Amino acid sequence: MTVSPDFADWMREQRTAMEYFLDRQLPAPNVAPTRLHEAMRHATLGGGKRIRALLALAAGELVDAPRARLLCVAGSLELIHTYSLIHDDLPCMDNDVLRRGKPTCHIQFGEATALLAGDALQSLAFQWLAEESETQRQPGQIIPLIHLLAVASGSRGMAGGQAIDLESTTTPLPLPELEIMHLKKTGALIRAAILMGAHCGSAPLEAADLQPLTHFANRVGLLFQVVDDILDATMDTVTLGKTAGKDDEHQKATYVTLLGLGPARERAEELEQEALRTLARLPLATQRLEDLTRFVSARHH
Amino acid sequence: MTVSPDFADWMREQRTAMEYFLDRQLPAPNVAPTRLHEAMRHATLGGGKRIRALLALAAGELVDAPRARLLCVAGSLELIHTYSLIHDDLPCMDNDVLRRGKPTCHIQFGEATALLAGDALQSLAFQWLAEESETQRQPGQIIPLIHLLAVASGSRGMAGGQAIDLESTTTPLPLPELEIMHLKKTGALIRAAILMGAHCGSAPLEAADLQPLTHFANRVGLLFQVVDDILDATMDTVTLGKTAGKDDEHQKATYVTLLGLGPARERAEELEQEALRTLARLPLATQRLEDLTRFVSARHH
Repeated sequence: MTVSPDFADWMREQRTAMEYFLDRQLPAPNVAPTRLHEAMRHATLGGGKRIRALLALAAGELVDAPRARLLCVAGSLELIHTYSLIHDDLPCMDNDVLRRGKPTCHIQFGEATALLAGDALQSLAFQWLAEESETQRQPGQIIPLIHLLAVASGSRGMAGGQAIDLESTTTPLPLPELEIMHLKKTGALIRAAILMGAHCGSAPLEAADLQPLTHFANRVGLLFQVVDDILDATMDTVTLGKTAGKDDEHQKATYVTLLGLGPARERAEELEQEALRTLARLPLATQRLEDLTRFVSARHH
Repeated sequence: MTVSPDFADWMREQRTAMEYFLDRQLPAPNVAPTRLHEAMRHATLGGGKRIRALLALAAGELVDAPRARLLCVAGSLELIHTYSLIHDDLPCMDNDVLRRGKPTCHIQFGEATALLAGDALQSLAFQWLAEESETQRQPGQIIPLIHLLAVASGSRGMAGGQAIDLESTTTPLPLPELEIMHLKKTGALIRAAILMGAHCGSAPLEAADLQPLTHFANRVGLLFQVVDDILDATMDTVTLGKTAGKDDEHQKATYVTLLGLGPARERAEELEQEALRTLARLPLATQRLEDLTRFVSARHH
């Protein structure tokens, strides 16, 4: 099986819709405080693969979710992801200068403004979800989305994964701990994207569907990270749009440094196949999620 | 009129309840990632005046709000306030070493962990509110609370006020702009505390009550800041539990530097009287909010 013939078009359309949504919903650059709003827009707009948004949109299609709600959910995920990149690039973390092919937020706007831009993007994600509820008058359907996003972002999700990653620079992690770290650091938000999309339907998801979907989401999260490690070790900075070779320079434990390049590629193949097999167990039309799984596996940046 | 004879007891009881709630609800220090959870607990527990929590609890008493919901709301406000203090103390912001009489979070745990602890506390505030909804099965009442907190924290609230404050260190603000900045930086969360408390009743607040309550909340927010500026200029570091004389050192525009100490005290007196007059217009038992207004005005740290 290969990627659907219309997948590239679908992906382009979704990204355009996402960019339009984010551009329109973010505070305008001429609204005070202008420098803060410029920094928030600089980091969020005009770049990014929008993997989390695409996964949420594709999962929403499984359950015929209303488009407006899906765009809001996908937008809130992109805000959380962007805030995490801004903070991750700060000098006290990865100290990086390039992101999405542009200067990082603190290089462009200074550290203090970058810190605040990340903080404000996090608040805005929850604000958007609360406002979507007001529009739709279905608060009972929005609260689980807010809960999924908050848990995925917090100390037992993304922020927790970053904390484990910090500690690992002094003591390298063995492979099982590396996978636990990634299930949180990158995996938590990717899992939340898929589950939030699937929770946007008018009826709650069946428990029998939720379990394989969660398993699928965890495999895609790990797959994304293995491929990220392979790309960091093999591609150049211009192609990636962010500094390449960072993991090696920072002596980080990665799939490549722990396993070597060949076995890391085998692990990616294994995760892809497991993800696709899990999808096949769902009694739903999962073509877009299959396409995205192959895309995450075969991406070059 | 003076402070009620039982006010000191009430305040002590509320603070004890708040501390117990936070201690129990925050992730335990032995839960992984332990260093991150220790940092979150270090910054949140064992100190702080809990003004925002007290205002929310007092406003909730106006409308006979259920105690469990009030504690959750007050706790979420303290998490947002604590995260803002952690980030505000970082080297790229105020670069401070002392907070609540203890080493600041980044002095104790390093900058990267402090950054993540602040980020995770923000997520946790929204997580707690979403979980309170699950317990109470009243999502329609929780969404407005989440919206109030998100807007108050974000780029048009607290984070926005801090961004204006940053810009003011290069160009000092005239008094009207100083008040606009403070209405956001400190005022937004204080206003949210009072409105969130008042929204915890079983019935929505009457528009006729909401307008004076909002006006009252804005006056208390400014009053808090004028007194803060006076304390920074007149008290010592040990009494404050944070570095004194910072405003002067950083050449910040404050009520004291713009008006002088005498007129700043007159402005505080004026704001206190206006706040109390506004409360008197409410057809509700506002004794605790009156007490708190006098306390905010007369506090020594």
